[in-house]
Amino acid sequence: MTSRISRVIVTPLAFADPPLLNVVGVHQPWALRAIIELHTDSGLLGLGETYADETHLRRLEAVADALPGQDPFDLHGLRRRVIDVLGRETGGGGASFGGMLDVSSAVDTVYAPFEVACLDLVGHEVGRPVSDLLGGAVRERVPFSGYLFYKWAGHPGRPDDGWGEALDPDGIVVQAKRMVDEWGFGALKLKGGVLHPDLECDAIEALREAYPELPLRLDPNGAWTPDTAAAVADRLAGVLEYLEDPTPGIEGMAYVAARTDVPLATNMCVIAFEHLAPAIAVDAVQIVLSDHHLWGGLRRSALLGGITETFGLGLSMHSNSHLGVSLAAMVHLAAATPHLTYACDTHYPWKTHDVVAPGVLAFDEGEVAVPTGPGLGVELDRDLLGELHEDYLRCGVRRREDTSYMRSIDPSFSPNTARW
Amino acid sequence: MTSRISRVIVTPLAFADPPLLNVVGVHQPWALRAIIELHTDSGLLGLGETYADETHLRRLEAVADALPGQDPFDLHGLRRRVIDVLGRETGGGGASFGGMLDVSSAVDTVYAPFEVACLDLVGHEVGRPVSDLLGGAVRERVPFSGYLFYKWAGHPGRPDDGWGEALDPDGIVVQAKRMVDEWGFGALKLKGGVLHPDLECDAIEALREAYPELPLRLDPNGAWTPDTAAAVADRLAGVLEYLEDPTPGIEGMAYVAARTDVPLATNMCVIAFEHLAPAIAVDAVQIVLSDHHLWGGLRRSALLGGITETFGLGLSMHSNSHLGVSLAAMVHLAAATPHLTYACDTHYPWKTHDVVAPGVLAFDEGEVAVPTGPGLGVELDRDLLGELHEDYLRCGVRRREDTSYMRSIDPSFSPNTARW
Repeated sequence: MTSRISRVIVTPLAFADPPLLNVVGVHQPWALRAIIELHTDSGLLGLGETYADETHLRRLEAVADALPGQDPFDLHGLRRRVIDVLGRETGGGGASFGGMLDVSSAVDTVYAPFEVACLDLVGHEVGRPVSDLLGGAVRERVPFSGYLFYKWAGHPGRPDDGWGEALDPDGIVVQAKRMVDEWGFGALKLKGGVLHPDLECDAIEALREAYPELPLRLDPNGAWTPDTAAAVADRLAGVLEYLEDPTPGIEGMAYVAARTDVPLATNMCVIAFEHLAPAIAVDAVQIVLSDHHLWGGLRRSALLGGITETFGLGLSMHSNSHLGVSLAAMVHLAAATPHLTYACDTHYPWKTHDVVAPGVLAFDEGEVAVPTGPGLGVELDRDLLGELHEDYLRCGVRRREDTSYMRSIDPSFSPNTARW
Repeated sequence: MTSRISRVIVTPLAFADPPLLNVVGVHQPWALRAIIELHTDSGLLGLGETYADETHLRRLEAVADALPGQDPFDLHGLRRRVIDVLGRETGGGGASFGGMLDVSSAVDTVYAPFEVACLDLVGHEVGRPVSDLLGGAVRERVPFSGYLFYKWAGHPGRPDDGWGEALDPDGIVVQAKRMVDEWGFGALKLKGGVLHPDLECDAIEALREAYPELPLRLDPNGAWTPDTAAAVADRLAGVLEYLEDPTPGIEGMAYVAARTDVPLATNMCVIAFEHLAPAIAVDAVQIVLSDHHLWGGLRRSALLGGITETFGLGLSMHSNSHLGVSLAAMVHLAAATPHLTYACDTHYPWKTHDVVAPGVLAFDEGEVAVPTGPGLGVELDRDLLGELHEDYLRCGVRRREDTSYMRSIDPSFSPNTARW
């Protein structure tokens, strides 16, 4: 069993995305993703999914060129190849995603989808689901939270998206009701940083009234000053399961953490291994949101899980707009992470298209059953892949630019980071 | 591919051990180990090796009884079974090894050999070496250090062991010469805590004179007060590669670390995941010695490697008296640990018997080539296994008791912990 990677295909895709508002602007009409295919000389196929901003795409393609001959079991060797290629092709620079997430090295984000695809390949080669390759599933179903957004009824100049406008507590509760009724989520997260914090607290309190039992989270993506963040934590103590990134930076988060018992979570100030030691040293956060796209794939995300367990931190999971290959990878990772202490985030309900054949991934009572087939357990639908690639070619979007898209609608807009 | 564990055999062994001196006494004439065999319904065999103190052996046997039906891929499930069994059979108590190492929970030490044996099984099932299951070998050969001991010429009342007496610098240099000449080690470690620290410093300086280029380590197993430890570090600054456990406890080590630039290593104050956060918080150690027997197997030792890398600590590897199954596991782990920053310890040269068929594990220039066969890559020699089991039955030793054995020779002896 020494099958080698013989061919690598990187396919950029675009899929329709509603006008979801956030601290830096609003989602563009098209979200971008890339699907990685690793083919072996023995006829197997492994899949990965990642961001598709043009800089990232160039790096993925440079790595793709270097992979033929690689053994899919040799993940340390894969990582060395990625480091070599990035050093040669890009000077080893960092990476930026969505105008909010910046990392000083692109190695983990570029390595991640290839690692996932290698694990998918290995799973197919040995006839085992990816969760088995990560030590075995500790849960058969993975719980997700419903991800609520302030939003317009539709993109300006385009038809409404069917979800309706949500710019006040009532709109958020209506959205939550649809999420809970159709998908069964047992926890809810509101993306904040859009309106004045008092109004966002009103929305959380309205959700609490509508759903007395559901765990609630609020994530303003660092929109508040440390003092405002502490005041919000005061107001929502006993209401929130956790407060995510109320203020930017490890120092600010530590200031807030010292002033509240509400657990603080992050996907902004701790998004790479280098951030863990400084954050732990000042007790800046109580919960880290893992994200295998950002943290270097499934095995390094498992390492993050072990680190959070070792240092007494909670562990949840972050999500960007994504398709089914990523959902499958998230589910296998979550299933094989004993220390996962919260329901995972997902943007999945907000999209209307996918590239995986239907039937394997389904939400039932807010949970997704762990696929039991070999590898990730999902199959690429080449017709759907072709359609979304056509959309990519046609749509003209080449990077995620929430701020400039927002400014094309409201020229006075500027990002809300620590505004309030 | 759903082979299941069908039969488990735990075989306690004894093998001759020279009178190696340490802080708590002297090695008994017989060292104990246990070999774990996991047989599957598909006819595969997986091997593990661990301690064989009688308390540990009882726990191993209790777990062995619970394993038939277990999927060797499901390591998280294996761990749950170990936790269940230990809770039921032993009340969940801790474990003690060699009079020096105490852990508050026996889960990791009991789980470890079964985990290794499962990885050996999985490797055989998929036709891959264990290093491939850990992410791939980053080195084809694993460097070890020569492990020097103060010792008598032989056990009292028994023939000399052929290594001669080593109770002064000359004796240590002669021993080092044999280690280097016969095994090719490129680093040397002296087990201290036996003589006055001035005399042990003399020995290190004699080694430096004899081997101007070899990295040197001194490990007195916590024999010194913090102030003595700081004074020794002063004297040996620029001579030692690292100083291992000069004084007991995280607090004492932090005191010494603040007073010297000599890196402090530990296999005593950080020997379980629960010790990492407190040690890191006070910068008590710069290097952790991993040991898969103690840290819960190969995957959890890989987690330890990732934690040390994340927190800027060095990583070396500890050894107790062991046989070839353990050596193979150590080599695969070391090969697949990118962050391993020092040559590993091994007691291997001090034993005269083994249970693995010869030919795979060999020291060349102080290094062992990573086995490339499936699983651990070593084969049990059933004749040798039978012989060492007979020795176990005959020898009467049922636990490691360096102190009481020493007292049978020198009734006035008491352990040297923080004596000087």
